[in-house]
Amino acid sequence: MDVIVDLCVVPIGVGISVSEYVAACERVLTEAGLTIQLHAYGTNIEGEWDAVFAAIKRCHEVVHEMGAPRITTTIKAGTRNDRKQTMAEKVESVERKLKTDSK
Amino acid sequence: MDVIVDLCVVPIGVGISVSEYVAACERVLTEAGLTIQLHAYGTNIEGEWDAVFAAIKRCHEVVHEMGAPRITTTIKAGTRNDRKQTMAEKVESVERKLKTDSK
Amino acid sequence: MDVIVDLCVVPIGVGISVSEYVAACERVLTEAGLTIQLHAYGTNIEGEWDAVFAAIKRCHEVVHEMGAPRITTTIKAGTRNDRKQTMAEKVESVERKLKTDSK
Amino acid sequence: MDVIVDLCVVPIGVGISVSEYVAACERVLTEAGLTIQLHAYGTNIEGEWDAVFAAIKRCHEVVHEMGAPRITTTIKAGTRNDRKQTMAEKVESVERKLKTDSK
Repeated sequence: MDVIVDLCVVPIGVGISVSEYVAACERVLTEAGLTIQLHAYGTNIEGEWDAVFAAIKRCHEVVHEMGAPRITTTIKAGTRNDRKQTMAEKVESVERKLKTDSK
Repeated sequence: MDVIVDLCVVPIGVGISVSEYVAACERVLTEAGLTIQLHAYGTNIEGEWDAVFAAIKRCHEVVHEMGAPRITTTIKAGTRNDRKQTMAEKVESVERKLKTDSK
Repeated sequence: MDVIVDLCVVPIGVGISVSEYVAACERVLTEAGLTIQLHAYGTNIEGEWDAVFAAIKRCHEVVHEMGAPRITTTIKAGTRNDRKQTMAEKVESVERKLKTDSK
Repeated sequence: MDVIVDLCVVPIGVGISVSEYVAACERVLTEAGLTIQLHAYGTNIEGEWDAVFAAIKRCHEVVHEMGAPRITTTIKAGTRNDRKQTMAEKVESVERKLKTDSK
């Protein structure tokens, strides 16, 4: 089962700046061989369910090891069994609609 | 690693009423032996990370088997390594603060 | 337009314990006359859209005033125009399905 | 109070494809003069709190007008009072950390 995920990991109890921890998660996801896309409020991930969620668990472990005593994470997870769909296709699908309507 | 989760599974493409699918997820979570608490916009779950996320994956499989071609799920996941904390303690902690302040 | 919301306000940069801030938000929501229900990973709110979102904004203002330099909040917001639905009805609807199926 | 938001509007009861509704929301946000960035699981928005949330409310109204009887929306909202921060800066901050560490 493939999944497209939006992941936002928030370390609590380590001060105001969280970019160091987000960067560490990016490395975990990349090393797991997943297709990812960083955006301003999280990271989109595309892959097989087990691989994606194993990497998300690893993010929590790594962020705790970096010193964060507490983590709160928000995940959106989308699956479909009618057809395959990539992250790029989701964006293109909306952009195509926007172009058609503006003609 | 223990985790407290807030889970909200939304089937897409099966009409307006989603309670049948939410009930199916409740059964999946209960049969997995997890401590759960249904609320008006999701279900809180308490348990070991792997057991909780295996059950969430099973929810997606079951909801697809019930006929939903597409699912979008929102998950909040909280971990901490400074101390153990239950769902009940999180609620009590806030309620205690509310009582103290109203004195 | 009525809305049912799940609100989770997370102050960043003020240490590990957040219950004090959550309690402050509970008071803001209650003083706004909204129907609320605290749970282990947020607070459910029921009310008219403008009243609910004005109270959520007030939560951010109050949590900043309490000393949090940064806040990240997760909101689920549900609206429907086919019929009225309360938070209690959403829970009852799922519990009814669970009872029927276990017969 | 400025806010950075991640918005994901999901129409329920209108079939499997939701891109038409997402495109309509993009137009609402653009017409409101907000800085936005579409990604694979939502849209990032940057602006003043009241303008951003007025536009989100308008998204719900428009998606209902298009025929969706029910909508469930997920919002992440970040505010800070220690300094100004744009969406672009949030991404750059993480990417700078990634470059530094790979040297």
